[in-house]
Amino acid sequence: MSNERLTRQLAFIAEIDALKKVERRTSVIGGARLENSAEHSWHLAVMAMLLGDHANGDVDLERVLCMLLVHDLVEIDAGDTFAFDAGANVDKMERETRAAERIFGILPDDQSTRLRALWDEFEEAQTVEARFANALDRLQGLVQNHHNGGGTWVQHGVTRAQVLERMEPIRTGAPRLWPHVLEVVDGVFG
Amino acid sequence: MSNERLTRQLAFIAEIDALKKVERRTSVIGGARLENSAEHSWHLAVMAMLLGDHANGDVDLERVLCMLLVHDLVEIDAGDTFAFDAGANVDKMERETRAAERIFGILPDDQSTRLRALWDEFEEAQTVEARFANALDRLQGLVQNHHNGGGTWVQHGVTRAQVLERMEPIRTGAPRLWPHVLEVVDGVFG
Repeated sequence: MSNERLTRQLAFIAEIDALKKVERRTSVIGGARLENSAEHSWHLAVMAMLLGDHANGDVDLERVLCMLLVHDLVEIDAGDTFAFDAGANVDKMERETRAAERIFGILPDDQSTRLRALWDEFEEAQTVEARFANALDRLQGLVQNHHNGGGTWVQHGVTRAQVLERMEPIRTGAPRLWPHVLEVVDGVFG
Repeated sequence: MSNERLTRQLAFIAEIDALKKVERRTSVIGGARLENSAEHSWHLAVMAMLLGDHANGDVDLERVLCMLLVHDLVEIDAGDTFAFDAGANVDKMERETRAAERIFGILPDDQSTRLRALWDEFEEAQTVEARFANALDRLQGLVQNHHNGGGTWVQHGVTRAQVLERMEPIRTGAPRLWPHVLEVVDGVFG
């Protein structure tokens, strides 16, 4: 184990602490504050441990966990882009790709490549694992807003149709959870 | 998939949101605020993805990740017990065991048993995976305090000897990281 390798790993570990400062547009349950992308990523990973039976096929849990743990790291540079802000979403991929290059680039080359591949896989949403991970990413926002009486959907005037469109990855990635999505959306939007 | 099963899983997922409100005795890097146990758990899990080469033997990454993701859930009821507060540590195990029963008990029985077993494994620190996970738990505090110029060690008047004793699991669980621990401790305590 070279010192150079460990030095880069430790630099990355310190760097990603910054994800704890990236605020999302959903609140913690109870609404006391917005949640941040680090604790959100943790929440998703625990959900993955529990909801695998709802995936659309057999999933490799380790790969799902690794994908979820790193899927938001680009937000350290690119910020969290509000899903319902069409303007901000125009250059989202460009900003996030630059961020991925810088942030994953801190790591030793092999690990940089591995984490970048996990992020790409999540973004492309083609594998069973990536579709399941994307479904959980949407489901977690739904759970938070459900327990906050509509939460940030209501605060930002998001419509029922916009929410359903946003939740679409759940239909493909975890189809058995779709009835629950409809139930929550009906409860919030009446 | 019974509704009863999903209902319990979703109740658990909502319940554990509370881990985002449990404050630890270490600060985020920069010192703006204390970190919480949810984002701490995320940080540890990413570290596990990167530092496996430093473990004391081959580790099953999936099990390490699952262990780290749930290892602090008992703090929802029992709170974070400051490692250097001998008084609070007297009844720590009793408080945490009660918490484990209530919190993991929300889940369907099979998942309740599985998560409880992961928590027990972490606490007992006998397997290679649990020793590695415990080493990372200590290392993360070291990284935070290192980047905060001694951070909460200095604020709470913790001594060099106390820190080294606290870091001991790194020597057994990730021995190749021990020289780094000594380097950081020397840097902080001079």
